[in-house]
Amino acid sequence: MISKKNNLSEKLIINKYLKKLNFNKKGTFNFENDGAYLELKNNNYKLTVTTDNISENIDFFSKDDPKSIAQKITTVNLSDIFAMGAVPHSYLLSLFLPNYINENWINSFTNQLKKIQNKYRFYLIGGDLSKSNKLIISSTFFGFINKNLEVFQNKFKLNDDIWVTGNIGDSKIGLEILKKNISTNSKTKQYFIKKYLYPKPHDLGPLIVNQINSMKDISDGLIGDLTDMLNGKYGALINLNKIPLSVNTKKILNNKNNLKIENLLNAGDDYGLIIISSQKNRNKIMSISSRNNVKISCIGKIIREKGIHFDSHFDMKNIKKFDHFS
Amino acid sequence: MISKKNNLSEKLIINKYLKKLNFNKKGTFNFENDGAYLELKNNNYKLTVTTDNISENIDFFSKDDPKSIAQKITTVNLSDIFAMGAVPHSYLLSLFLPNYINENWINSFTNQLKKIQNKYRFYLIGGDLSKSNKLIISSTFFGFINKNLEVFQNKFKLNDDIWVTGNIGDSKIGLEILKKNISTNSKTKQYFIKKYLYPKPHDLGPLIVNQINSMKDISDGLIGDLTDMLNGKYGALINLNKIPLSVNTKKILNNKNNLKIENLLNAGDDYGLIIISSQKNRNKIMSISSRNNVKISCIGKIIREKGIHFDSHFDMKNIKKFDHFS
Repeated sequence: MISKKNNLSEKLIINKYLKKLNFNKKGTFNFENDGAYLELKNNNYKLTVTTDNISENIDFFSKDDPKSIAQKITTVNLSDIFAMGAVPHSYLLSLFLPNYINENWINSFTNQLKKIQNKYRFYLIGGDLSKSNKLIISSTFFGFINKNLEVFQNKFKLNDDIWVTGNIGDSKIGLEILKKNISTNSKTKQYFIKKYLYPKPHDLGPLIVNQINSMKDISDGLIGDLTDMLNGKYGALINLNKIPLSVNTKKILNNKNNLKIENLLNAGDDYGLIIISSQKNRNKIMSISSRNNVKISCIGKIIREKGIHFDSHFDMKNIKKFDHFS
Repeated sequence: MISKKNNLSEKLIINKYLKKLNFNKKGTFNFENDGAYLELKNNNYKLTVTTDNISENIDFFSKDDPKSIAQKITTVNLSDIFAMGAVPHSYLLSLFLPNYINENWINSFTNQLKKIQNKYRFYLIGGDLSKSNKLIISSTFFGFINKNLEVFQNKFKLNDDIWVTGNIGDSKIGLEILKKNISTNSKTKQYFIKKYLYPKPHDLGPLIVNQINSMKDISDGLIGDLTDMLNGKYGALINLNKIPLSVNTKKILNNKNNLKIENLLNAGDDYGLIIISSQKNRNKIMSISSRNNVKISCIGKIIREKGIHFDSHFDMKNIKKFDHFS
């Protein structure tokens, strides 16, 4: 798939592969202008914006399937858009391409982007291409949200519920399997590796935005992101046995793999949502989630005592903050 | 200035250096959210968006003054915003930082950004920080434009005037001086090196938007960018002696430096505007430019014969298309 040398010109990449991603939207000028116009359908919405990057050897490896890399760059950004309570609108893509990138790679990468765009209904507005010694992808995403709404990450009250969507730790276990730190049977392996290579954003955000006080996606690990949300104001009491784990994760934890639940609490790349909301909205939140087939778990509550506390005793030293920057 | 090792955390960079750039705008959440809101003052405007990147060893060198690098990342983007006929609104900044970047570097870089933001009145909405082996800066800029206006790059008529703002080639000569391919006296050297290290965007765009048919900034060289605008539809007849040159460039050309005017016609990084407009607006365009102290030169006109033609004979082989991607 990957050749030693490429002969890709900027025009070829744009005309043959990127133009199909603009969905013929007028403001994109079919990528024949240096800029684009961003238009919303009417005046009842405002734009949310977020920017996130992924880099070779940090967030993925050069040998990874380009489909997985397309999945990652969209998920890291869509996840922020959903956590802002917004619906995806459009995006910009900056590609820093090393020589090993060939047409097959671009073809596979852009086909996967198109698939994801169709699923969540957003289009490519524009971007930039550069040469680089490592593959780096930088993307800016736009979403829209009712102009009277605003989602904060650190606004909540004492005794508010703390929720998490999806399962914690699947992606981390997938990475450890790829690093050969965990061994398991072939079918279970595939489950976890897929979770790691093809993380999905949780689109519950915009559906639940009226019921919540704060929301954030889990990109740096549950504990790290929750700590950011608490912002030194209040604390959280977490019920360890309420932490949502997949059936496969429970098997791995039981199989003496040297892996403990503590190791999963701050694993990056889960992309679930942490939601903090008033207890009085508990039923509404559960019914919206169930109606939309989203697994949601109430894992604890906001307490006065600062920091993160657990109802079970275990060694906090095992929880290390995950930092994409270090 | 540059140390072997840094100990910069993401939080330190954000809190100590980047927060001063958000100008306390509400939608930025003071960089404490993963996303931001983009709001325009009223409904009479639409947003324009552009994204451009600069990379170490391609667009600048690691030893360059961080002030110069700040100037370059803003100019490449502001130049597109002005060419869209828009007024700057805000921007996102993604920094890929190698280990040699220390606090002094960040301090100097962000101080220069603040200066430029104050000059053109725009603020930082958000961004992303990553580690990297080379310094790469990716930025997305927003501008606003009257919602009934739209600036194209390739809409014009036969006999339309072709204009250029500023001078052609100063930046290219600066680069050749740094590469020791051109020698001159110390004062002239400083003039050109400053033009290369501190390129300025041409803010005439939004002032002249009602008088023009097409507009584009010169980032890949006058001939390359004009060819893109012509888009294979019509041709251009250029009066070679109308190409605007600085007094210093004329001296260099006279000094037998092996440099010919042909070498300057496709030099990158001039950042002037190419404007195509109806002859009947000629006086208006000259008076708006003069009122705003912008040098503008009518260098030719649109003709039926495709391609770019000159009124003087010279060797076209010397004109090589500049390509940031190659």
